[in-house]
Amino acid sequence: MAVTHPPFPDIPPVRGFRLATTACGLKQTGAPDLLLVEMDPATTVAGVFTRNQVVAAPVTLCRQQLAAGIARALLVNAGNANAANGAPGLHAAATLTRRVAETLHIETATVFPASTGVIGVPLPLAGPLQAIPDLAARLQPGDWAAAALAIMTTDTFAKGAVRSFSLAGQPTLLAGIAKGSGMIHPDMATMLAFLFTDAAVTAPVLQTLLHRAMADSFNSITVDGDTSTNDTVLAFASGQCGAPLLTDPDAPQAEPLARALNTLCQELAQAIVRDGEGASKFIEICVAGARTPAEAKQVAFAVAHSPLVKTACAGSDPNWGRILAAVGYAGVPIEPDRLSLSLGDVAVVASGGRVADYRKEQGEAVMQQEEIRIHIGLGLGDARHTVWTCDLTHGYVTINAEYHT
Amino acid sequence: MAVTHPPFPDIPPVRGFRLATTACGLKQTGAPDLLLVEMDPATTVAGVFTRNQVVAAPVTLCRQQLAAGIARALLVNAGNANAANGAPGLHAAATLTRRVAETLHIETATVFPASTGVIGVPLPLAGPLQAIPDLAARLQPGDWAAAALAIMTTDTFAKGAVRSFSLAGQPTLLAGIAKGSGMIHPDMATMLAFLFTDAAVTAPVLQTLLHRAMADSFNSITVDGDTSTNDTVLAFASGQCGAPLLTDPDAPQAEPLARALNTLCQELAQAIVRDGEGASKFIEICVAGARTPAEAKQVAFAVAHSPLVKTACAGSDPNWGRILAAVGYAGVPIEPDRLSLSLGDVAVVASGGRVADYRKEQGEAVMQQEEIRIHIGLGLGDARHTVWTCDLTHGYVTINAEYHT
Repeated sequence: MAVTHPPFPDIPPVRGFRLATTACGLKQTGAPDLLLVEMDPATTVAGVFTRNQVVAAPVTLCRQQLAAGIARALLVNAGNANAANGAPGLHAAATLTRRVAETLHIETATVFPASTGVIGVPLPLAGPLQAIPDLAARLQPGDWAAAALAIMTTDTFAKGAVRSFSLAGQPTLLAGIAKGSGMIHPDMATMLAFLFTDAAVTAPVLQTLLHRAMADSFNSITVDGDTSTNDTVLAFASGQCGAPLLTDPDAPQAEPLARALNTLCQELAQAIVRDGEGASKFIEICVAGARTPAEAKQVAFAVAHSPLVKTACAGSDPNWGRILAAVGYAGVPIEPDRLSLSLGDVAVVASGGRVADYRKEQGEAVMQQEEIRIHIGLGLGDARHTVWTCDLTHGYVTINAEYHT
Repeated sequence: MAVTHPPFPDIPPVRGFRLATTACGLKQTGAPDLLLVEMDPATTVAGVFTRNQVVAAPVTLCRQQLAAGIARALLVNAGNANAANGAPGLHAAATLTRRVAETLHIETATVFPASTGVIGVPLPLAGPLQAIPDLAARLQPGDWAAAALAIMTTDTFAKGAVRSFSLAGQPTLLAGIAKGSGMIHPDMATMLAFLFTDAAVTAPVLQTLLHRAMADSFNSITVDGDTSTNDTVLAFASGQCGAPLLTDPDAPQAEPLARALNTLCQELAQAIVRDGEGASKFIEICVAGARTPAEAKQVAFAVAHSPLVKTACAGSDPNWGRILAAVGYAGVPIEPDRLSLSLGDVAVVASGGRVADYRKEQGEAVMQQEEIRIHIGLGLGDARHTVWTCDLTHGYVTINAEYHT
């Protein structure tokens, strides 16, 4: 079950990146589970990682390597998270990156690893180690759909997006792939996203732009409120587009790249929600009239995390009382008499009470749709924030109660 | 569906309290939905209410009246929460308490109201207003089972508990009834608890003892993390036991009452969890080795709120990775290498990694039981806290997605 989604887009090759995928035995289904991307020299890298204090071995390695800002390869496996494996887990991740480095004749510290899958199970090394030379021999520009497939776990569709724009008159591309269908899910549905651009941008500037792009994308979605040990977003810039190096994140020259990063991350984040475990509906929650954006976000997430709101959406029930209750316990000071609430275009609550001519049938008509927009007004200020989530269905319980480690 | 629970206990009459119940048409099933309790003069009262900022009209009234510390009657209706009804809601609550006062010839401000049921629907007054004189005519000591039944909504069993103890050589009773099967659930499963004792205790001392009893009872349970607009715990003390008035919450004389309140509240709170919506398992989460009790509680609730942990319990999956991940995102600084974890008596994780001789079959044997105990050691200090919750099942989704306002 997944919310309706567009087909995988037609993403052209991005200069400076070559990729290959294979099945190395980590997924019991025999599906592709290993992705290798090789990058031109001088490719810069930026990264954002899980806030969980229990982190997977590849996250630890990536964080260490990020300081240098240079990447030559990315190795992603699906089927095993290599998390909660202690020192042997770090050793396993290092062994794989070393094999990639030896094979491609690059520095080990420029190989970025990522893993997703079962937690607490030692990562089997034989399959990946054997597959790496073969992958290296088959590197080709541009099969992004295959790359997106190889990093999937419980995802039901491959997720990718592309932006083309111009930097100093030079046509430039930004391609992205992502996976993750529980948000964020320590077993099988860690959120991973990898972005590839031929823009020329310093690592610190790329880091700043990537960080900014998180707020209205991956940091504004939730499926079940759980935060994975493995969540990783990495952005790579090969510098091959021919435009001058971007050295200031706030310069007008950087704006096309910033805008591309923002909109592409939002598109990938929304695709993850549409593929939320068991999701049958896509829900947008916009909180306006807050004193600060942070308070708007806190209220929006309280509503988005509420199992009662999520089950009401699943049941097409215009249960606005559950929404008001979640607003009330969000931990943000509010004035109940100023609250307003709309479901889609239907005004339901004004000044804290039910709108006089609201009829339940109007709310039901909105809630029966596959995409539900909930607009909450706090009446306290001008700040707003929007988050995206999905409904809580029997499918979610089935996936997570009946899937066994 | 509910976890196995003991039958309703045999609770004797408590001196100073007379009660009656009836069906006044608020529950569509025609089941009893109105409870009236009359209390002797000089009965003291204490109360604890929802932390939700959106509160029901009866909660507002109770809070106002609590300052005087005197109660003569309690009126509880089930089937309509009288929440999010604005000024007309307050008027409705006041109309009912005034009718009780007129009927019993007492002060209106000594009548405490409570409501549970659908939110945002005006409270129909005709039925309750007509029923109150009849209830007043039928007041009798002691049918606590009927009282517990009349306040139920989605509960599948009536919840009551009793403690008998001695104050200054005088036999004293504490009786309690409670309802609430989602915790805490704005539509139909608000948590309500009412405690009745013939102890003689000042209102401020009763308030202090009640407040202390919350920490390890109603404030340490969760079903779905939602907080109702109506949650109410009220304690009434008639002073009829014959012992001297308790005027110091820390005096040795107060200790039997304090202990009775603590253990009775914990028993009622656990009963609510056992009747959690769709619950098939009762889960105890003990976090030890924390720096402070507050941090222990924060970690315990992160685990208790995790949909992934709750679905793993439903599926009898010893998925310790999900538990460690929830510990990691709880927002409390931890040292992952010091974490330990046991399922029941089975040690699963030590020093942050899987115990060498742990076998999955051992964990499964624990998780298949109807009562699951999860013990988490942080290795940082001596503080601990225990919370109770239930699993997340298809039953929960059915109740909340298919129930309509």
